[in-house]
Amino acid sequence: MTVTSETRLVVPRGFVFASGTASIKASGRLDVGVVEAPQRATAAAMFTRNRVVAAPVAVGREHLRTSRGRVRALLVNAGNANCATGPAGLSAAGATCAALADLLHTTPELVLPSSTGIIGVLLPVEKLVAALPDILAHRSSSEEAVAGFAHAIMTTDTRMKTASAEFTLDRRPTSLLGIAKGAGMVHPDMATMLVYLFTDAAAPPSVLRRVLRRAVAQSFNCISIDGDTSTNDTVVLMASGAAESRVAADEAGFTSAVVEVCASLADQIVADGEGVTHVVKLRVDGAPSNRAADRIARTIAHSLLVKTAWAGADPNWGRLLAAVGRAGATIDPDAIAIWIAEEKVCDQGAAVPFDAGRVHRRMSEPAYEIRINVGSGPGTARFLTTDLTSEYVRINAEYST
Amino acid sequence: MTVTSETRLVVPRGFVFASGTASIKASGRLDVGVVEAPQRATAAAMFTRNRVVAAPVAVGREHLRTSRGRVRALLVNAGNANCATGPAGLSAAGATCAALADLLHTTPELVLPSSTGIIGVLLPVEKLVAALPDILAHRSSSEEAVAGFAHAIMTTDTRMKTASAEFTLDRRPTSLLGIAKGAGMVHPDMATMLVYLFTDAAAPPSVLRRVLRRAVAQSFNCISIDGDTSTNDTVVLMASGAAESRVAADEAGFTSAVVEVCASLADQIVADGEGVTHVVKLRVDGAPSNRAADRIARTIAHSLLVKTAWAGADPNWGRLLAAVGRAGATIDPDAIAIWIAEEKVCDQGAAVPFDAGRVHRRMSEPAYEIRINVGSGPGTARFLTTDLTSEYVRINAEYST
Repeated sequence: MTVTSETRLVVPRGFVFASGTASIKASGRLDVGVVEAPQRATAAAMFTRNRVVAAPVAVGREHLRTSRGRVRALLVNAGNANCATGPAGLSAAGATCAALADLLHTTPELVLPSSTGIIGVLLPVEKLVAALPDILAHRSSSEEAVAGFAHAIMTTDTRMKTASAEFTLDRRPTSLLGIAKGAGMVHPDMATMLVYLFTDAAAPPSVLRRVLRRAVAQSFNCISIDGDTSTNDTVVLMASGAAESRVAADEAGFTSAVVEVCASLADQIVADGEGVTHVVKLRVDGAPSNRAADRIARTIAHSLLVKTAWAGADPNWGRLLAAVGRAGATIDPDAIAIWIAEEKVCDQGAAVPFDAGRVHRRMSEPAYEIRINVGSGPGTARFLTTDLTSEYVRINAEYST
Repeated sequence: MTVTSETRLVVPRGFVFASGTASIKASGRLDVGVVEAPQRATAAAMFTRNRVVAAPVAVGREHLRTSRGRVRALLVNAGNANCATGPAGLSAAGATCAALADLLHTTPELVLPSSTGIIGVLLPVEKLVAALPDILAHRSSSEEAVAGFAHAIMTTDTRMKTASAEFTLDRRPTSLLGIAKGAGMVHPDMATMLVYLFTDAAAPPSVLRRVLRRAVAQSFNCISIDGDTSTNDTVVLMASGAAESRVAADEAGFTSAVVEVCASLADQIVADGEGVTHVVKLRVDGAPSNRAADRIARTIAHSLLVKTAWAGADPNWGRLLAAVGRAGATIDPDAIAIWIAEEKVCDQGAAVPFDAGRVHRRMSEPAYEIRINVGSGPGTARFLTTDLTSEYVRINAEYST
C-alpha cells in the first residue's frame, strides 16, 4: 500500500469535486466547496466534543441521523463558522442544504454542511446560494477539481492538505483520498479542523463509524484535539462502493489505510500550524501507564515555556523537566532522562554534560524528536507538536480586525 | 486596616533585611537576599506541588520539620534555581544554610533557603558564601533594606513587589509586610513565584499554617498557580511576636489582613507578567457550582486564542464562547451571555449588536473586566489573568541563551 501526499493524488471513483467563491472571505478567494457522490455514498462522521456547537454541526448530525448514514453531497464554506448565530444560524445552514439539494434533485437530508471561519456572524445565505449553480457546473473528478475543493475550505492555512492511498481490498483495486483544513493546531483550542475522507470501497455506515473512530484515535487525537475541540470540528468518511470491494473482507487492512492517510493529514496540519517554525515529535516512555505517558506528553506539548524555548532552538531541558513534574502523573523525578535530537541532556533527573551548540543546531532544523524516559513502567505515548512563535501571536491578535 | 503597596511600607518589628551580589546573575545585579529574625520567628510555608522539586525546597521542608516551625533567617538567591542538580544540589543548599548559620551563630536548621533562576546548573556555593559577610554587615530594618531584598530576589520581574498593612490585633498595633517575586504568571507553568510574609504578631506555627492556606487559596491560587506550580514555588509566613499581639485573639481579622496583602502581591505579579500589556479580571457566574465556574475561568485564562485576541484588543467574543464550551463544565450554550468592559457582546449564546469601536477602545486600556454568565446556577469564580503578546514569546525564547 502506498500513501502519497501532494505529489500524486488518487481520486476514488464515485465522487466529483467543485469549488468557487461566494465572497464570504473578504479576500475574494475560493470559499465554497462541494463534493457530490452522484450514486450516493454511505458515511460516518465525528464532530466536535465542544458543548457549544456550530449550526452546521447540529444540522449535519440531524441529516446523518435522518438519512441513516447516506450522503449525496458535502457543502463546505470558509470565512464564516455559522456558530453562535442562534435559530437564524440553524435556518441558514438548513437553507443552504436545501438549495444544493434542489440543484441536485435530491432531499436536504442527503446534504452534509460544514462551515469554518469567524464565530458570531450570520452566514450570508443568499450569496452562497447564488454561487452554487456556477460551482456545480464545473464539478469533476480531476485532480484540479480536488485541489480546488482543498483550497476552498482553507482559512489561515498556507497550503492545501491532501493524502491518498491505493490498495487491494477484497481482491479489487481500491483507493482512499483525504482532504483536510486546519492550521492553528498549535494548542488544542485552536482553529477548526475539517477532514473529509473518500473511498470507493463499500461498507455500511456502522462499519465506517468503527473504522473512523480507530483511525482518528491514532492520528488526529495525537496532535492535540480530543476533548479540546473547536465548535466546528468535523471528520467525515464517505464510501461510494464504486470499486465493488467490501471493507468487511479486510476491515483491519482498510483501517490501516485510513490511519495512514489520516496520519499524513495530521502531519501536514501540524507542520502548517500558525507561525510554526519547528515540528517536534515527542516520545514518552517508562510511565506507569499509557494514560500517564499521554498526560505527560500533552503537558509538555501545551507548556508555553517549553514551546517558546523551542522557538528559540534553546536546549533548555529544565523546562521539559518542570513540565513532566507538574503533569500530575506518578513518576520518580530521579529516574528522568531526556534526549533532544538523540543527544542525552538529562539523566537521573539531573544535568549531564552535552554539546549545547550541536543540540542548538539540531533544534534549528524544521523537525526533530524529543524523547523522555520517566521510569521503568510500560506506558508510552507519541505526540506531534510545534513551537510557539511571535508570528503565531501576530496572526491571532489580528484575526478578526 | 490599610494596605499599601509600593507607596509607604510598614516594616514589622523583629526582622532585619539585607542584600548583595554574588555574581550569580550574569548582569551583576543584586542576587542574594537575607532576612534575619534576631529573636527567631515562628513560621509556616507552602511549597510547589510539582513532583520535581528544587534542592532548596527539599532542604527547606526538612529544616522546618526539624526546627518545628522556627526560623532564624531566610537565604534567597536569584539567577540559579538549584533544581535538577542531584545530590550535589542538596549539598549546595545545605552548605549555604550552614555558612549563614555560622555567621549568625545559630544552627543550619533555622535557615530557610530559596533559589530562583535557571534549572540544571549547579549553584556556585563558594561565590554565594563569600558574599555573605559583606551582605550581613549592612542588614537593617529600613525601607531601603526591604527594597534591596525585594530587588535581589527578582529574575525577569521589571519591578519589585511589596505590600504592607497596619492593624490593631489583640488591642496592640500590629503590622504585616509581604515581598514577592514572579513575573511569568501568564500561564500556570510559568516562572517561579516566591512570596515572603512577615508579621510582628505572635502565633504558633500551626495557626500560621491555617492562616497561610486560607490566604493563598483566596489570592495566589486565583491567578493561576494551584496544581501547576514551578519546581521552586514557595510562600512563607513568619511571625516575630515583637508586637506582643496574639493572632489567636482574632484569627479571622489577622487572616483578612494576610489575604489583603497577598491579593495586592498577586495583582502586582499579574500586572508584571512577561510581556503583559493588558490585565483582565474574569468573572464567571451562573455555573452549576463554584468548581465548574473555576474550571471555565481557567480554560478561558489559558486559551492561546483568547489571550492573543486580548493582545490585539480584539472584541472576538466567539473565542470566549468556544473556550466556555470546551471547559468540560455542564452549561447550556443557549444561556451564555458575555460582557466585555460592561458592554454586552453576546446574549443567549448568540451575537447581539454592540459598538465594536467602543469595546476595542476599552480593551486597549491596561485593565478591564470580562463577565460571563453561563446559566442560572449558584457557581461563581473570579480569576485574574493577562494577554499573551509577541513580547512574551521573545522574552521566553531567549531566556537561557
